Amino acid sequence: MPTSNPLETLVTETAIDDIGAYMNELGARARAASRALARAETAAKNAALHAIADDIDGRRDLITTANRHDLEAGAAKGLDAALLDRLELTPGRIDAMIEGLRQIAALPDPVGTITDLAYRPSGIQVGRMRVPLGVVGIIYESRPNVTADAAGLCLKSGNACVLRGGSEAFASNQAIAASVRDGLADAGLPADAVQVLATTDRAAVGAMIQMPEAIDVIIPRGGKGLIERISRDARVPVIKHLDGVCHVYIDAAAEPDKAFAIALNAKTQRYGTCNTMETLLVAEDVAERILPRLGAAYAAKGVELRGCPRACTLLPDAVRANEADWAAEYLAPILAVRVVADLDAAIDHIARYGSGHTDAIVTEDYSRARRFLREVDSSSVMVNASTRFADGFEYGLGAEIGISTDKFHARGPVGLEGLTSQKFVVLGDGQIRGG
Amino acid sequence: MPTSNPLETLVTETAIDDIGAYMNELGARARAASRALARAETAAKNAALHAIADDIDGRRDLITTANRHDLEAGAAKGLDAALLDRLELTPGRIDAMIEGLRQIAALPDPVGTITDLAYRPSGIQVGRMRVPLGVVGIIYESRPNVTADAAGLCLKSGNACVLRGGSEAFASNQAIAASVRDGLADAGLPADAVQVLATTDRAAVGAMIQMPEAIDVIIPRGGKGLIERISRDARVPVIKHLDGVCHVYIDAAAEPDKAFAIALNAKTQRYGTCNTMETLLVAEDVAERILPRLGAAYAAKGVELRGCPRACTLLPDAVRANEADWAAEYLAPILAVRVVADLDAAIDHIARYGSGHTDAIVTEDYSRARRFLREVDSSSVMVNASTRFADGFEYGLGAEIGISTDKFHARGPVGLEGLTSQKFVVLGDGQIRGG
Repeated sequence: MPTSNPLETLVTETAIDDIGAYMNELGARARAASRALARAETAAKNAALHAIADDIDGRRDLITTANRHDLEAGAAKGLDAALLDRLELTPGRIDAMIEGLRQIAALPDPVGTITDLAYRPSGIQVGRMRVPLGVVGIIYESRPNVTADAAGLCLKSGNACVLRGGSEAFASNQAIAASVRDGLADAGLPADAVQVLATTDRAAVGAMIQMPEAIDVIIPRGGKGLIERISRDARVPVIKHLDGVCHVYIDAAAEPDKAFAIALNAKTQRYGTCNTMETLLVAEDVAERILPRLGAAYAAKGVELRGCPRACTLLPDAVRANEADWAAEYLAPILAVRVVADLDAAIDHIARYGSGHTDAIVTEDYSRARRFLREVDSSSVMVNASTRFADGFEYGLGAEIGISTDKFHARGPVGLEGLTSQKFVVLGDGQIRGG
Repeated sequence: MPTSNPLETLVTETAIDDIGAYMNELGARARAASRALARAETAAKNAALHAIADDIDGRRDLITTANRHDLEAGAAKGLDAALLDRLELTPGRIDAMIEGLRQIAALPDPVGTITDLAYRPSGIQVGRMRVPLGVVGIIYESRPNVTADAAGLCLKSGNACVLRGGSEAFASNQAIAASVRDGLADAGLPADAVQVLATTDRAAVGAMIQMPEAIDVIIPRGGKGLIERISRDARVPVIKHLDGVCHVYIDAAAEPDKAFAIALNAKTQRYGTCNTMETLLVAEDVAERILPRLGAAYAAKGVELRGCPRACTLLPDAVRANEADWAAEYLAPILAVRVVADLDAAIDHIARYGSGHTDAIVTEDYSRARRFLREVDSSSVMVNASTRFADGFEYGLGAEIGISTDKFHARGPVGLEGLTSQKFVVLGDGQIRGG
């Protein structure tokens, strides 16, 4: 609850002498809370989600004040405009946090679902029950809305969580955390189920990724450097989201209008997202028909083109691509373009330079579509659709805590199900094993 | 193929000057082979499995000779009888390897299976396709039959594999590896899809667990020390199988004959297996009725009992258990016995001392059975069945490469499906993303 001087308590970091002891204590509380949360009824979890949403709605002033404090401190420290933009909690973004929590409440609860329950020859029934992972650690950068989103997804999936946001968003995160704690308590769930670190000390991150006894999985959200550093040092499994070097391959049998629309949308609908196309591959049989029209459309949008020699002959504004361009995740209005011989060459290019995120083929040829789906080893493979669809909401997962570029455990957009595991359940009537 | 002096080539370790370079080369070949295997048709994989089985059948003499060499060298080195037993390839064990490969060929191929393909509001169809993990590294100890079993499971699930068996089984493993290579080649699949290390140098294991660019997952099979060491040092995900501290809880509402049969079977059907019961929990309301009869049966089988004070009053032969007994995985004719107040006390005991492997309740009470299934956080939870059923064959997985005590990725017995991942497939008709 807000105290007599609420802002003061939010912006002032607690002095912690012994980070190791603090993290051990926090981890033990998370572990204990995770047991209560794993068996919490769906109704209680949904009540908590709505209570948190209500609480955020009722404390907009405090949250905005805390956020303004972060923004001013950030500006004084010289943070760049893009970072300050990500940091800002506008009224619309606060609305979105609230709405996001209510949407998570409306999703089906995966926990406890039993599938494939079938009789075995011995007479036992064997099935699988979906269960929470336990305690999820999330390490993120500037966006404070992640605090509410991540808390909501972990809560609904029955997991306790430990959240470590960016130091530049400290006061904003603490303000949201206060609402989360109060909402949990209102619903009779342990407030320790969601703990936001009360320190920005980097040693806390080091401890967090090395305590498998307390934390079952780490999800880092942020730049590649952060994710690589965490993956290297972690002693806990990490759900990684590395590069999105996404391709669209326009096949010789592509319908030209679909190819045009998809290639334009995949690059220009948004430039900074991981599922944005970074390299366009075009079959040589249709390059002459496809590329000039596309090139003009990209030019009209201000997209810089970097092409292979053949592409450059068809794209007057293009500059020559070098080897690094084929592996680049520009996240900007820049596109690499390569003319390839055929489907095999496209698949080989993607295998060599791609990051296994999202790749699409545009074709009306049944057999080539079928081969592309099977042979391209990416978290999302598409036929005749824009790579921009690779997203938890578009896929019907309801919400996503991230996109995994790993193959292990979860691949692609990670929703509630990706935050769970399955245990075997066996129902018998006194069966014993013979032999 | 056998050369003019086949045994000589099998028992002689290749001299490798630069283990790092050797492992990098081997890893690159595995990675390349994994791409071919991922798109191999089911018929080709099954043909290879049968060809390997035929080849092993046709080279029994060579395999037996190589195995005899290992056994003699092991005896000379003073290996104990249990280890020599595990090392021995009897005619029956060779039959079992052959039969195991043919059974894997008969299992459904999980690769390429598409599930949950459904239309989304945007008009795209979204589903999930099961795909291989890529390259699986398996590190095991003395049993040479693992070479054939693991190769077969990886092959069927579309994964290349790198196998590192125990040094004491070197010649046996090389003999089996020769059959695997020839069988793969007969079926037109790359022989590099299954590579057995040609060295027993421990530095190769160190390299193997630190090459994420070549190996996607490590499965260690062996003692707890091996698995802990590998997990600590690995930079690749590890599917771990640690302790099996399994419990049977006899509830106050247990049917006494079922309780007797299950508690006896779970402990005595085999002592050395991970799904054997190590601690028996009995509700105090029925302890007096249940324990004396069970105690006599255990005594007749030579099982040593270690009880809590209350259990000891009901079990004349029992000695007093100490704290370490509650967490012990005896793998021997020893059983810890504790009288507990009720279901809550049993669940708390299991949460505190159990290893999350397999736990069972014996009860006719519907609500308590339901709570036990939900609240006990183990890879297998059972009602009225012996813990000994926790096994890939009994569960209908067809075969298992191990049992995972992790929650991440795979939990419980790991069959073909545990060696795969899922990617998203998106089928469209020119859809682009708006907004």
